[in-house]
Amino acid sequence: MSHPEDPANPGNVAPVHQEPRAHQEPRAHQEPRAHHGTEPLRVALLGCGNVGSEVAQLLTGQAEDLAARVGRPLELAGIAVRRPQRARELPGVDPSLFTGDAAALVSREDVDVVVEVIGGLEPARSLILSAMANGKSVVTANKLLLAEDGASLFDAADRNGVDLYFEAAVAGAIPIIRPLRESLVGDEITAVTGIVNGTTNFILDKMHTVGSTFAETLAEAQELGYAEADPTADVEGFDAAAKAAILSSLAFHTRVRAEDVHREGITEVTGADIASAKDMGCVVKLLAICRLTEENPPRVSARVHPAMIPATHPLASVGEAFNAVFVESKSAGKLMFYGPGAGGAPTASAVMGDLVTVARNRVRGAAGPGESSYARREVAPIDSVVTRYHICLQVSDTPGVLATIAGCFAAQGVSLQAVRQQTGDGHHDADSDGPSASLVLVTHEATDAALAATVEALRELPDVAEVSSVMRVEAH
Amino acid sequence: MSHPEDPANPGNVAPVHQEPRAHQEPRAHQEPRAHHGTEPLRVALLGCGNVGSEVAQLLTGQAEDLAARVGRPLELAGIAVRRPQRARELPGVDPSLFTGDAAALVSREDVDVVVEVIGGLEPARSLILSAMANGKSVVTANKLLLAEDGASLFDAADRNGVDLYFEAAVAGAIPIIRPLRESLVGDEITAVTGIVNGTTNFILDKMHTVGSTFAETLAEAQELGYAEADPTADVEGFDAAAKAAILSSLAFHTRVRAEDVHREGITEVTGADIASAKDMGCVVKLLAICRLTEENPPRVSARVHPAMIPATHPLASVGEAFNAVFVESKSAGKLMFYGPGAGGAPTASAVMGDLVTVARNRVRGAAGPGESSYARREVAPIDSVVTRYHICLQVSDTPGVLATIAGCFAAQGVSLQAVRQQTGDGHHDADSDGPSASLVLVTHEATDAALAATVEALRELPDVAEVSSVMRVEAH
Repeated sequence: MSHPEDPANPGNVAPVHQEPRAHQEPRAHQEPRAHHGTEPLRVALLGCGNVGSEVAQLLTGQAEDLAARVGRPLELAGIAVRRPQRARELPGVDPSLFTGDAAALVSREDVDVVVEVIGGLEPARSLILSAMANGKSVVTANKLLLAEDGASLFDAADRNGVDLYFEAAVAGAIPIIRPLRESLVGDEITAVTGIVNGTTNFILDKMHTVGSTFAETLAEAQELGYAEADPTADVEGFDAAAKAAILSSLAFHTRVRAEDVHREGITEVTGADIASAKDMGCVVKLLAICRLTEENPPRVSARVHPAMIPATHPLASVGEAFNAVFVESKSAGKLMFYGPGAGGAPTASAVMGDLVTVARNRVRGAAGPGESSYARREVAPIDSVVTRYHICLQVSDTPGVLATIAGCFAAQGVSLQAVRQQTGDGHHDADSDGPSASLVLVTHEATDAALAATVEALRELPDVAEVSSVMRVEAH
Repeated sequence: MSHPEDPANPGNVAPVHQEPRAHQEPRAHQEPRAHHGTEPLRVALLGCGNVGSEVAQLLTGQAEDLAARVGRPLELAGIAVRRPQRARELPGVDPSLFTGDAAALVSREDVDVVVEVIGGLEPARSLILSAMANGKSVVTANKLLLAEDGASLFDAADRNGVDLYFEAAVAGAIPIIRPLRESLVGDEITAVTGIVNGTTNFILDKMHTVGSTFAETLAEAQELGYAEADPTADVEGFDAAAKAAILSSLAFHTRVRAEDVHREGITEVTGADIASAKDMGCVVKLLAICRLTEENPPRVSARVHPAMIPATHPLASVGEAFNAVFVESKSAGKLMFYGPGAGGAPTASAVMGDLVTVARNRVRGAAGPGESSYARREVAPIDSVVTRYHICLQVSDTPGVLATIAGCFAAQGVSLQAVRQQTGDGHHDADSDGPSASLVLVTHEATDAALAATVEALRELPDVAEVSSVMRVEAH
């Protein structure tokens, strides 16, 4: 199945490029639609890191199966890397395919599909736009680019009549993009709640099961390769926020950008929070929460933050670095999609599924779904979100303190579901004369604004030495 | 959005039929691909039971959203029911749409897509084939027909250049067909293990949690509407076997029919089995197990039977009437899809997703994936399947009995993982003089043939009064 380039005609220009066009005929009604053939569809790969190297090997190693599934062979036309002279050897992959000139590769006439697994905004965006302008369909795993500037990509795909597929951009190998874009497109999705970042799930899961601190667990995650040397994108929730923007856009047929997503990371989650969650029968997870508000017309609320969820919720049992996405819709009810959310091979699986789909579309002159953003929904600010809070306070252990604190909640119209006092730790607050106690409060549902105002007011109370933790309680 | 038929021209033939064809032009490269328009795409609905009535109402009630998502309005052209005069009133649905002449409806020139939710082999098959021969794309929920004669349907779709979509045929609202046909099509799936029948899962779950017998729980399921008056298709595993055939065909790119699936129901599962499973940290589930064997070339093994699985397996926590499908593949690893597997609204959600997809394809002159059965794999008989057994015996409580029994396993080359004797129930076996004991044995992996031969041999032993239960242990 390997089909090395002819060095005298590196582009293989004429026959390869003309052939796909010839197949894009209208399907006559009584004519079989399978346009099988032997002319390869040619794939340009941008990036050859963990994901790209898996894709390159799957393309060559599974060539016969892929040809049978697509209807025509798939062939690597080139692999763009920053330093082609340093490109690693990949079993079965012709080393002469490596090139440093990505811009030339995406506009080569003999390329039909471009797979972008470089990541980041630039040069990925320019390369994808150039590929589309040159009539190539694009498969990308680039969540950041889609969340920051998806509109440009979708517009370019539409303008140029090419496909844009991105299953690998959210939750790795888990099919979630296609289910939202296609399977559930006749339904009305009301909420998508995801554990979409494996690093933070690994850390929170370890903190829960082992009882270690955030700092200790992060160090362990870095050693095991679950966290980057600079873990900011993961632990501060940027990665999950990009995915929340993509999921919200698809689920609610609108445009949501990363900057529309309220974002809080997990760096301030303490062992005490996790222990307190356990006491409540809960676990702490970093959630990407995408909801339609109950207003008319509904707005979109998208947020990423750590939250306590009941241990009985399907998302609660998602351990280690696994991902899961929980979808609620009017007709289907509650669905969950679970699997490995990252890693070279799982991400490559998603890329390969898109690549076969895009290639099949090429073979038959068909096209996948374009952007569906007709609903043009407003984004609801975090203030208006209705949620519950779990709050830990260090207070002076004096009579009447609970009444004062409860009054503080009442003044903001927030009612309390549970109050639990933890005494006897012998802790004396430096700023006060008397002994102190820990107070754990859980509210009923209220707007985030009212809850935030309550916390502000609590901080002003002389009897409150410290608001040691504030965390939302979700999925109850 | 409603577009009542012109009584003088019931077919609306000329404009409606010509319009879709005009849109099936090749996509020129620089031409935008969105072919939005106001001419409706017309949908014929076959069947108006639980699912059909939901589909009819979603089609009319969500008309604006559907039009925006498809690019053109969707409109009901007719609803075929057995007794149109008895057709129920559906909010928002024009009663004049009901017809008793399904055959005429599927060949009407003003129909673009046919949705079949009648179920059963005939007249569903003839109607679908006629619809396709008349150039209509088809959406069906008909697992039985696909499992018995999918080849005819796929061939007809291919021959006529139309779409055949069937997400609702397996696991109700859970997107599993599209993920297998498209998302994972670039990967190598090695196993699909599903809880794909809600009735039996409800019964087994109740038996586990409440401790009731099969007969009691079946009666309760029938009262609650989770089981039919004649529960045979569910409790004997026929429904799950049809779904296993469909899942195997898609996962392994081959043709597997219902008759190729080894099938055992749950009617013989006892409270003792469930209790014994609990003792082992297991639960009992009716599983549809689809696997590629490790031979070269691999064969397909597809079977439906009750099995014990560890309580820690993701499928173990699937309770009540929910469904879940666990997929293992080379690159993606382990994925799970979970949700409601039956019911009018969830099944309608899957139908509507297919309908929008098929309609989008029509609007753009595109086509979804056809059948992928190139691998033409052989089906491995149940004998060759490698599995583990959990066996309960009633034996005479005499010295040496365990040695005799263990010898029986050894003679077939089956090794034992665990043996547990349960004594002291005061039970005296009628055919023997001495006291009896219960013996629970769990084997290591062996072929089903060796295990079955062992069980046969045990039955012949004078010391064995009864082989009271034999169940496979899976997913370990």
